[in-house]
Amino acid sequence: MEAKRIDINCDMGESYGAYRLGMDAEVIRYITSANVACGYHAGDPQVMDRTVKLAKEHGVGVGAHPGYPDLVGFGRRNMECTPEEVRDFMIYQIGALQGFCAFHGVPLQHVKPHGSLYNMCVGNETLSVAVAEAIAAVDPGLIWVTLGGAQADLAKKVAAEAGIRVLFEAFPDRAYTPDGKLASRKLPGAVIEDPKRACEQALRMAKESAVIALDGTRIEMEVHTLCVHGDNPSAVDHVKTIRQALEAEGLRIVRVGAPD
Amino acid sequence: MEAKRIDINCDMGESYGAYRLGMDAEVIRYITSANVACGYHAGDPQVMDRTVKLAKEHGVGVGAHPGYPDLVGFGRRNMECTPEEVRDFMIYQIGALQGFCAFHGVPLQHVKPHGSLYNMCVGNETLSVAVAEAIAAVDPGLIWVTLGGAQADLAKKVAAEAGIRVLFEAFPDRAYTPDGKLASRKLPGAVIEDPKRACEQALRMAKESAVIALDGTRIEMEVHTLCVHGDNPSAVDHVKTIRQALEAEGLRIVRVGAPD
Amino acid sequence: MEAKRIDINCDMGESYGAYRLGMDAEVIRYITSANVACGYHAGDPQVMDRTVKLAKEHGVGVGAHPGYPDLVGFGRRNMECTPEEVRDFMIYQIGALQGFCAFHGVPLQHVKPHGSLYNMCVGNETLSVAVAEAIAAVDPGLIWVTLGGAQADLAKKVAAEAGIRVLFEAFPDRAYTPDGKLASRKLPGAVIEDPKRACEQALRMAKESAVIALDGTRIEMEVHTLCVHGDNPSAVDHVKTIRQALEAEGLRIVRVGAPD
Amino acid sequence: MEAKRIDINCDMGESYGAYRLGMDAEVIRYITSANVACGYHAGDPQVMDRTVKLAKEHGVGVGAHPGYPDLVGFGRRNMECTPEEVRDFMIYQIGALQGFCAFHGVPLQHVKPHGSLYNMCVGNETLSVAVAEAIAAVDPGLIWVTLGGAQADLAKKVAAEAGIRVLFEAFPDRAYTPDGKLASRKLPGAVIEDPKRACEQALRMAKESAVIALDGTRIEMEVHTLCVHGDNPSAVDHVKTIRQALEAEGLRIVRVGAPD
Repeated sequence: MEAKRIDINCDMGESYGAYRLGMDAEVIRYITSANVACGYHAGDPQVMDRTVKLAKEHGVGVGAHPGYPDLVGFGRRNMECTPEEVRDFMIYQIGALQGFCAFHGVPLQHVKPHGSLYNMCVGNETLSVAVAEAIAAVDPGLIWVTLGGAQADLAKKVAAEAGIRVLFEAFPDRAYTPDGKLASRKLPGAVIEDPKRACEQALRMAKESAVIALDGTRIEMEVHTLCVHGDNPSAVDHVKTIRQALEAEGLRIVRVGAPD
Repeated sequence: MEAKRIDINCDMGESYGAYRLGMDAEVIRYITSANVACGYHAGDPQVMDRTVKLAKEHGVGVGAHPGYPDLVGFGRRNMECTPEEVRDFMIYQIGALQGFCAFHGVPLQHVKPHGSLYNMCVGNETLSVAVAEAIAAVDPGLIWVTLGGAQADLAKKVAAEAGIRVLFEAFPDRAYTPDGKLASRKLPGAVIEDPKRACEQALRMAKESAVIALDGTRIEMEVHTLCVHGDNPSAVDHVKTIRQALEAEGLRIVRVGAPD
Repeated sequence: MEAKRIDINCDMGESYGAYRLGMDAEVIRYITSANVACGYHAGDPQVMDRTVKLAKEHGVGVGAHPGYPDLVGFGRRNMECTPEEVRDFMIYQIGALQGFCAFHGVPLQHVKPHGSLYNMCVGNETLSVAVAEAIAAVDPGLIWVTLGGAQADLAKKVAAEAGIRVLFEAFPDRAYTPDGKLASRKLPGAVIEDPKRACEQALRMAKESAVIALDGTRIEMEVHTLCVHGDNPSAVDHVKTIRQALEAEGLRIVRVGAPD
Repeated sequence: MEAKRIDINCDMGESYGAYRLGMDAEVIRYITSANVACGYHAGDPQVMDRTVKLAKEHGVGVGAHPGYPDLVGFGRRNMECTPEEVRDFMIYQIGALQGFCAFHGVPLQHVKPHGSLYNMCVGNETLSVAVAEAIAAVDPGLIWVTLGGAQADLAKKVAAEAGIRVLFEAFPDRAYTPDGKLASRKLPGAVIEDPKRACEQALRMAKESAVIALDGTRIEMEVHTLCVHGDNPSAVDHVKTIRQALEAEGLRIVRVGAPD
């Protein structure tokens, strides 16, 4: 039997002008897909150029990471946009990143909305349709990466109608509610800070397609990619540890867009 | 013998949010190529979406009109950018517009830099190389539209090295110096305000590939497209007049990207 | 007995760079207080400079009109900001306008939040406190202008605690609900398009401190200033008509900051 | 005889949204004047708020550090602005910072343009007049801080005409040309990286109002404040060393705005 496969994705290219954010050059060694900021919540053309180049050099899949047009808020603030605005903001940013993919001769692999745009779309059919429509508009071969679990069925329906593929991510360092949603960051225990426990959760997600919720309930969920962070040296260490644990368990770590 | 062909191009999509600029819906009836602002000096994703749709409906060729990142200055201020910055600013904006072309199922036809970016590149080899490299990076099938006359040879050399086509525009409403450059707007007579004279110059450019310079010298120059303006009702009237005059003289008015 | 006084306020200075919005030079002849955009949702330093100068020339009171940092959305989109962010956004913009007031030697008179910031604060104690705190922080002599009617008591309490004055505006061209709120623009009849009826409502507001709600109920409300619009020629005509009707009825039309 | 006085100034408040830049909380312990970014090239309202509060807590003089509207370029790119634009950009930013000074109950002490705006003004009479006019417009009690040496006489003349005080800064870590200008960063030796030599130069500047130019020439120049940097731990260490050396030599280290 073929070994199970899993992708590891990380947000990248979040620097801007003179500002540096993220340890892209270190974390990229351990991941398989990069979500590249597209200039709205973070990133600028020079940063996008460098980040696509870096991803190419490491054979990492390039994804667009579009956000709200709110640099000072880092795209983390809810903005009441119409579905048409969301669609057009996304088309703009995906297209812009495609320009750099063309420059470096790598295909754009996936699209994963950022921050508040990501959160507002999860479970919201109208906004999900806008997101899927934007992705299909630019290139129906692009993969939509979004949150799995409770919201997966809605996303699948929306993706099918738009004619695109959707794949699901899970968070090794986040707790889940018994109904398969991310536990609010305001709840105690919502963020798993113990690297060993995060590593165990990553293994369970990747090998068993399951998580143990905050109350101990076991939940089954499709997991195609694990979302990790590269903000600081210890975060990068955790990613390395997770990757090594996955490899030790015989998982094939390949980017979501790779053929079977 | 086949009739001579000429294109008519106009800047469009320069509205932004609540702000309206240009009579796009009127002037588009008389032109064959639209230079669409890409969000840096003007335009926003909604405006780009609407403008590409409008161009498609009228069978008008869509071009990217990238500028400096200076909305408040409308891209008209010189900014001392490195060639790499110019190249990346352009890749970003061309890519973004391509997203909307994909959405509407129309090909992107050409790229014409805007304002100060346009002016700074004319006759400047380093910046011209950056521009040509950006265009080739996104799609070597794109046509670079720039100023003809004195600077044409440099642009041809640069385009050839980048592996792209360059075509030349001329301005019916601008006076030229005897050495084939645009006369500075600070000079008296630099802007031809009399519609009749502008129309005559348009005809001479299109039919004879020539202009009469400020001092009466006749200059030969390749002219593939005439640049017109749609800022106000009388500007639109002038475009209509020029188009009718060109048609009356038997010229074929077709977009620069159309096959022969 | 002294004649009753009323102020007429209008949003101004909403142009930006090459973009023109509003007939400031015309409407300023009929108003007594100008709400000047401060560069976040509209306006730029040159426009602010010109607008303060224009207000000074016409003896019109200068007010700050701060909005959300959302130029492409014209400050009309809800943005989920913390109270501290709202306070700091306002301090920044009020201070910036004060710079131009100092330049032209006119005092800043009042502060009226714009668009979505205005709407989100009305009836919201937390955000109202942030607004009042910002105004008091810059200068406790500034007048806070906000919506009267149902929300007046909350605003008075908040203003008193912050140590500033609050004065109330009413909209001649908007319908009110029986409980003293603005009728949602989505309701039929919410916007009073008939200039004669808007004029009657303006008179009732100014003379009788009352409005007739959508269902015919008469509501008493304090009204210190009437909000009018200068977007287009017919809007300016309506302002002129309202002003003449108020004067014909013997009202003293003076800016809110003028001594009794 | 009274001990000689000297000020130490440092750029601060250059963070933006999620982006952190500069070790403000550390370096502020060793300086007497803070140049606070005002939102154009760096800084945002929250950062400005925190930075003014921090300066107040340490008894450090607050200065405005206005730049060009070019966040992605960190205000380091030349932009061809008119004198009126420069003046209005400065009034806007100085006013905005004054809002936070009022909030925290501290006076604004000085204004020092940033980056390319600083460099373009030095020795340029037209732009210097625009800068001085902006400062005088907001508050003629503000001190203009600019480069001393070769350009001091022009700045004094311009300041006198505008009715403001100008004081001069010098750079302990930069080499000077024999005619009293900063040596271009492109020249070898232009940046003094040896902390001991920078410290010696600081002492010579503060005690003797002199520098030794690149060719060994001794140049006399008025020096009221030394510009230092707080970008990283070793930069902060250098500032500490310079301060201790100045104190050891008996200099009084007081902010430029302090009375004698």
